[in-house]
Amino acid sequence: MLDMTPETRAAHVLTTLGEALAAGDIDRAVDLFQDVCYWRDLVAFTWNIRTMEGKGAVRAMLQAQLGHVKPTGWTLDPNEAVTEEGGVTTAWFSFETGVARGYGLMRLQDGKIWTLLTTMSELKGHEEPLGFERPLGAKHGAGKHRPSWKEEREAEARTLGYATQPYALIVGGGQGGIALGARLRQLGVPTIIVEKNERPGDSWRKRYKSLCLHDPVWYDHLPYLPFPPNWPVFSPKDKIGDWLEMYARIMELNYWGSTTCKSATYDDAKKEWTVVVDRAGEEVVLRPKQLVLATGMSGKPNMPSFPGMEKFKGDQHHSSQHPGPDAYRGEKAVVIGSNNSAHDICAALWENDVDVTMVQRSSTHIVRSDTLMEIGLGALYSEQAVANGIDHHKADLIFASVPYAILHEFQIPLYDQMKERDAEFYAGLEKAGFQLDWGADGSGLFMKYLRRGSGYYIDIGASQLIIDGEIKLKHGQVTEITETGVKLDTGEELPADVIVYATGYGSMNGWAADLISREVADKVGKCWGLGSDTPKDPGPWEGEQRNMWKPTQQEALWFHGGNLHQSRHYSQFLSLQLKARMEGIATPVWGLQEVHHTS
Amino acid sequence: MLDMTPETRAAHVLTTLGEALAAGDIDRAVDLFQDVCYWRDLVAFTWNIRTMEGKGAVRAMLQAQLGHVKPTGWTLDPNEAVTEEGGVTTAWFSFETGVARGYGLMRLQDGKIWTLLTTMSELKGHEEPLGFERPLGAKHGAGKHRPSWKEEREAEARTLGYATQPYALIVGGGQGGIALGARLRQLGVPTIIVEKNERPGDSWRKRYKSLCLHDPVWYDHLPYLPFPPNWPVFSPKDKIGDWLEMYARIMELNYWGSTTCKSATYDDAKKEWTVVVDRAGEEVVLRPKQLVLATGMSGKPNMPSFPGMEKFKGDQHHSSQHPGPDAYRGEKAVVIGSNNSAHDICAALWENDVDVTMVQRSSTHIVRSDTLMEIGLGALYSEQAVANGIDHHKADLIFASVPYAILHEFQIPLYDQMKERDAEFYAGLEKAGFQLDWGADGSGLFMKYLRRGSGYYIDIGASQLIIDGEIKLKHGQVTEITETGVKLDTGEELPADVIVYATGYGSMNGWAADLISREVADKVGKCWGLGSDTPKDPGPWEGEQRNMWKPTQQEALWFHGGNLHQSRHYSQFLSLQLKARMEGIATPVWGLQEVHHTS
Repeated sequence: MLDMTPETRAAHVLTTLGEALAAGDIDRAVDLFQDVCYWRDLVAFTWNIRTMEGKGAVRAMLQAQLGHVKPTGWTLDPNEAVTEEGGVTTAWFSFETGVARGYGLMRLQDGKIWTLLTTMSELKGHEEPLGFERPLGAKHGAGKHRPSWKEEREAEARTLGYATQPYALIVGGGQGGIALGARLRQLGVPTIIVEKNERPGDSWRKRYKSLCLHDPVWYDHLPYLPFPPNWPVFSPKDKIGDWLEMYARIMELNYWGSTTCKSATYDDAKKEWTVVVDRAGEEVVLRPKQLVLATGMSGKPNMPSFPGMEKFKGDQHHSSQHPGPDAYRGEKAVVIGSNNSAHDICAALWENDVDVTMVQRSSTHIVRSDTLMEIGLGALYSEQAVANGIDHHKADLIFASVPYAILHEFQIPLYDQMKERDAEFYAGLEKAGFQLDWGADGSGLFMKYLRRGSGYYIDIGASQLIIDGEIKLKHGQVTEITETGVKLDTGEELPADVIVYATGYGSMNGWAADLISREVADKVGKCWGLGSDTPKDPGPWEGEQRNMWKPTQQEALWFHGGNLHQSRHYSQFLSLQLKARMEGIATPVWGLQEVHHTS
Repeated sequence: MLDMTPETRAAHVLTTLGEALAAGDIDRAVDLFQDVCYWRDLVAFTWNIRTMEGKGAVRAMLQAQLGHVKPTGWTLDPNEAVTEEGGVTTAWFSFETGVARGYGLMRLQDGKIWTLLTTMSELKGHEEPLGFERPLGAKHGAGKHRPSWKEEREAEARTLGYATQPYALIVGGGQGGIALGARLRQLGVPTIIVEKNERPGDSWRKRYKSLCLHDPVWYDHLPYLPFPPNWPVFSPKDKIGDWLEMYARIMELNYWGSTTCKSATYDDAKKEWTVVVDRAGEEVVLRPKQLVLATGMSGKPNMPSFPGMEKFKGDQHHSSQHPGPDAYRGEKAVVIGSNNSAHDICAALWENDVDVTMVQRSSTHIVRSDTLMEIGLGALYSEQAVANGIDHHKADLIFASVPYAILHEFQIPLYDQMKERDAEFYAGLEKAGFQLDWGADGSGLFMKYLRRGSGYYIDIGASQLIIDGEIKLKHGQVTEITETGVKLDTGEELPADVIVYATGYGSMNGWAADLISREVADKVGKCWGLGSDTPKDPGPWEGEQRNMWKPTQQEALWFHGGNLHQSRHYSQFLSLQLKARMEGIATPVWGLQEVHHTS
């Protein structure tokens, strides 16, 4: 093996894997893997999102799935070079299953598979009408009484949800619901998106005025229509709102604004949901086969209940309800919490002449935006990455190919670099009394996001205000809210005209409790988190984000969400799972997750 | 030379050209050209759009321009292969002038330049903020009372045209005005677009309901934001309307809908226009330095005046005002004309059970849409072209590189192919009495478009209705309109409940007559046409489209328009000409066109 080129080595392993799988020779296939190995599958083999860790798990999955998956045609991608670096050979490949086409990335060590990513690209016979297959648009020839495109669109909008039923209902029309809706439309899955706000993009527009995306443009593209090259790096909230509104229109989504979801029940016999919605004052009963909650990973406010809150005479609200600083000029504000929202809100209050105090209740991970972009994201999502041939499609797959079980090992050195680069900055924060952390194992921001979705601030300026004492900083736990302020367990009392609870968000299955039932919410259990057994991400180890974009313990109930990157990338796999079910394609799920936590 | 590779041959010529021009050695430069040669320049050398035909013209241009253009840095594009086919060597290259960067395409025969295209890409120091240079969006750091993106946009929209004046005013907010507006925004040229319709896209929405673009998606991209891969080949009118509306918003254009332009006068001393507009009932006086008429190459209806029109008792209107077939079901319609609009309107009327007669007054060139796409456009604008590495940026330059003086030679064989391929179709049309032509010299549709902008139909179905007699066909000139119909010089009388005058459009300088004065309209003269001395394109030979996208005889007055391809490509050069003037960069124009026709 060692005298082979990387290309022949990769081709040899791939061919052998293909032959073994075609022959049903699971022993031979498993023998191609390292003892320490990871096979991450996005729908292609498991009809699930799973990482098989170790040969035993690979074997178990193949024993259950190989018979019906019927994989064939394993071929190195002729347009991508096989590379070798640090003893690791990396190769891109395509393959097919009985019902789908797939694409993957393989890493070899010592000629055996260390990591394997397999993803489903499209269902055979249900390819998206793109490029060569795009629709004609004009109707050539002539025919009596032919409706125009506009008449057909209007007829669809008028009848869907009334005379005809959507196959899928998406609750929540933020970027998650919109991205998924666009993919489902392409796949011909009749879908309605319901959203409580009036217009697409309002979930951004209605937030505090200084808000900009913390993730850069290269990370944020929606499916099919990437941002133009003049799009700003960090999109202002109203600008991304406009983009989402236009996107929903251009993609011809059936988007019901000003619509709230009142209740949902599943009929096991009929295999159908009954969902009652209020559409701008009109009650409409929808009967979709599939229900997707895209109500926001950070959408269910965690409103604390401190003693005495009812007595407070000023304004108090969760950060998600914060109207911005304008009404509070010259007043005193106390912000409980020290993560992203707390920092952004404190800075905007300060900019508008509010006397503002941040209450830090536990340590926070801070990285400077520039540094994060350069060291944390630059290799995959940046203008330089694009110039290097890594567009977001490729970046998404590279990112997906690193198993969560070892992702922190790749992250720790990056954060060590950041710590060193910005040593002076961190010294300033510590001098100001700010309590810093770098995640349980020093693996930094992405791991915190994946594990708990909280616990950090990407600094775009507020930290300097803390260093300079412009934003006042206090520590401790809140013991009581008084008529005029906040009492801490340090004994301190902080006078306040307004209190902002920047106390984060609950698990998305809380939405299921509100909408369906507590029973169903408990049956599906906690959403998000990897089971890393680090703060706010209790074990056991799951190895994938719980309940996200894949089958749950409740038939026909799905959770979709996350940042723009996840909304884009995982909507591909969720849309294929839904389309397959609509078409009656067998979708035997391997490794349906067990539930260990109800919230 | 003959033992050189194409690459070394091209490099040799380019290097020699660069050396000669750097040394001011015009003789040596001119000696690099074939006797029969063409140098087409888009702004880089001439601050004009000109084709120098023959060595004499090349010499004359260089004598006038070389001293201040100061071209340097002639370099073959390392990302594009030099190719050789049929004795012609083709090479892409970049170069610089004193104030700009440029890009070009060169064709050599026998080691000498046969065709040369030089285009201006960007002005030095005024590069567009794209890609690596895109704006940051978020404002990092903190500052008291900082406005948000939304507040800044709203303030700009509120003040521009009132407290502050636009540098450029674009009259007409169709695809032409929008594409140019987007480029000017990128270049930081304060611009207002005024449009009589309410919303961007209305100029499409308001046309007859069956209308779809006759040009395919690959030809139609706007600057910066190409259509997504699911966009239909031939966009329905309302869908392109939605796209234009979205585009104008996303590109942050200052777009004044429901605004009509009442008058415009130029102050030679102040170098400023005074333009009176009615903005939704409010009179606003604008004082731009530059005035662009983007009111539509096919925007100024040619309404005929036949004797007796005032007597007609039914509906009668120009095709641009045709409301669609719905009101005329069961009635009799006569459509005067046999070009694109006439065919589309006849077919839509027939589809809605109207008894319809087309009056053909002169022969018409017809090509089937499929055939035109495949043979006429496929090499440059098609999914296959994109797959072959020819995206619309490259296609635009290739198309621009073929001098108009010889373009027909490349077109004639294509149309010969079409004639053969669709022989049966044409035989059917002739049998039905339809009078066909292929252009004065058999060069077909594009040449007709460039020469006269009329005289053809891209068949998407109406021709079969004519062949089948479903659309009735009559010939002759209209002599009179009676109370109840149309009289022809054949003596025939055609009863009609509705008459549609599909009689085409006048020259764009008619807009200048309406808006400014007859004197200015006559001073700038006819717009469009090459001077080919073929029907409706009187000579003398001009070699470029008259008055389009370049300086006119009226200082600070510009014409912009054409199809989506031209709106996209030529807006680049018009925007650079305007930006240079705004920045006070010297723009000595070579070869300002002479006026030979006033309309």
